[in-house]
Amino acid sequence: MIQEQGVFAVGGTVIRRPGTYDPTQDGQNGQTLHGDHAQVSYQVPVAARRLPLIFVHGNMQFSRTWQTTPDGREGFQNIFLRRGFPVYLLDMPRRGNAGRSTLPATLTPTADEQAWFETFRVGLWPDFHPGVQFPRSPEALDQYFRQITPDTGPFDVQVSSTAVATLLAKIGGGILVTHSQGGGVGWFTALKNPDVRAIVSYEPGSNFPFPEDEVPQPMPCAAGTFKAVGVPMAQFLKLTQMPIVIFYGDYIPSEPTAIRGLDNWRVRRNMAHLWVQAINRHGGNAAVVDLPAIGIHGNTHFPFSDLNNLLIADELSRFLSVHGLD
Amino acid sequence: MIQEQGVFAVGGTVIRRPGTYDPTQDGQNGQTLHGDHAQVSYQVPVAARRLPLIFVHGNMQFSRTWQTTPDGREGFQNIFLRRGFPVYLLDMPRRGNAGRSTLPATLTPTADEQAWFETFRVGLWPDFHPGVQFPRSPEALDQYFRQITPDTGPFDVQVSSTAVATLLAKIGGGILVTHSQGGGVGWFTALKNPDVRAIVSYEPGSNFPFPEDEVPQPMPCAAGTFKAVGVPMAQFLKLTQMPIVIFYGDYIPSEPTAIRGLDNWRVRRNMAHLWVQAINRHGGNAAVVDLPAIGIHGNTHFPFSDLNNLLIADELSRFLSVHGLD
Repeated sequence: MIQEQGVFAVGGTVIRRPGTYDPTQDGQNGQTLHGDHAQVSYQVPVAARRLPLIFVHGNMQFSRTWQTTPDGREGFQNIFLRRGFPVYLLDMPRRGNAGRSTLPATLTPTADEQAWFETFRVGLWPDFHPGVQFPRSPEALDQYFRQITPDTGPFDVQVSSTAVATLLAKIGGGILVTHSQGGGVGWFTALKNPDVRAIVSYEPGSNFPFPEDEVPQPMPCAAGTFKAVGVPMAQFLKLTQMPIVIFYGDYIPSEPTAIRGLDNWRVRRNMAHLWVQAINRHGGNAAVVDLPAIGIHGNTHFPFSDLNNLLIADELSRFLSVHGLD
Repeated sequence: MIQEQGVFAVGGTVIRRPGTYDPTQDGQNGQTLHGDHAQVSYQVPVAARRLPLIFVHGNMQFSRTWQTTPDGREGFQNIFLRRGFPVYLLDMPRRGNAGRSTLPATLTPTADEQAWFETFRVGLWPDFHPGVQFPRSPEALDQYFRQITPDTGPFDVQVSSTAVATLLAKIGGGILVTHSQGGGVGWFTALKNPDVRAIVSYEPGSNFPFPEDEVPQPMPCAAGTFKAVGVPMAQFLKLTQMPIVIFYGDYIPSEPTAIRGLDNWRVRRNMAHLWVQAINRHGGNAAVVDLPAIGIHGNTHFPFSDLNNLLIADELSRFLSVHGLD
């Protein structure tokens, strides 16, 4: 039972060209371009809980990440609607339905899905990881690959986090649920708006903000060298004002490997552990949960749409309950 | 009360690069790209009517066209859910969330919104048309311009109509509701799949298929020369097998004008009238309704999200009722 649903844009900017618009001529004189916003679709269930969940997708993905699973089961959108939460799903700036960008892009069709299969830790092509919580049907894999959509302009963590901070200002607070590239968007949103009440991040992959004097050494891996970012201490301390939990799934190697898509997660997870230590050292309340360490096995880079996603949802519910956020 | 909701991809193709995928190397060898699909989001209300409404957006737009209005009132999605219809909203191939294209694109930020304000018949910038059914707040205009998203590959009426025909095959029939560029997608869908039970088209703008021997002369206007397309008679006759209604709004000039965004609609509406005559001449059942001629004034190119969109919805309901489709 849905009380209300709708869509709107948040954030973004406006480009204004000089001159005067002439309706009898072609050209940009005196015209505008509204771009770099996020698109938000929301649903509020009847008798809703107070705090909404705000879902921020990762790289190459869009809101669908949270809506369904590769085999068409219910995703976190429906699961948490059923649990009484208002849900806000974003298409982030310069991606998907928020494709109107103020910066140019050249889109070149690139066959890269076997590399994503590996990086998203479904398996090592053409084999699935043993015990992976991913459906085996060709139809599911087809749908999974069709969750991909390209950037229509350069990803910019500042542009994206400003859009989310604007949403929070509009709706008056909420809980961020982020994935992968969206993890960094979540941290930077919390630097910009105190209305972030908690952050739940699945496999954050980039833009970990440390105090300027405490940025860890860059971490080389088979996929390149991964760096954290520095922010002023006064900014960083804002991240100590809310509970944060980070979840990582299975199949992440402890030791270096030449397989790029796996080695990638080794260093990113290492960085997440250092970052959580920094948060807690400065008085915050953050944790990394490695799902296999709590007995939950077989998860890919998308735990929230894996075959055991109801179990994953239960862990989120537990976190919210412990912190009195539900 | 929603019985079921979800998202999935339909249509599209797969590119397969030669060679063997090597997880230790960059490059496309042995990799795939799934693209050119449409993304579908659907909702089925409790105690739903039998035939769903399938919504196909126009140029520069995406599913949001049907979801809301510039001032945040309910769009056709909610209005027809409340009237008991299952609703299927598409993001068409190479647009918005269906952005993964098998063909390249160069995206250049272009300030063009004053021209769209005119072409979408809101007014002649910076003035609104007298009596226009469009909200006057700056916030509404900001949201309206943020409904725009670019193509991520070339628009192709065949690729798009194949995706819609695939959706119809999957769900077993429905009523197409199309807008502008989507109008042609609807006609070509009906050429490909007999499960189209009716078509309701708001301001169709391109790809009118005539019998090869009956294609009208090209129509010059201030915005360029507009041409219909020819198809074999056996194909054309499929369009005579279902009821079709076309709606046009207000402010379309009868005589030529140098204002490109207005003259454009003069010839497109003229073509629609010729096309409906051809359908009916060959035994079909089609009509063009000029909304001002039935006493409904002030509509833009987006009647379904104008201030009087409940009245516009009533006309759609009436059409479905007359033909026993509700």
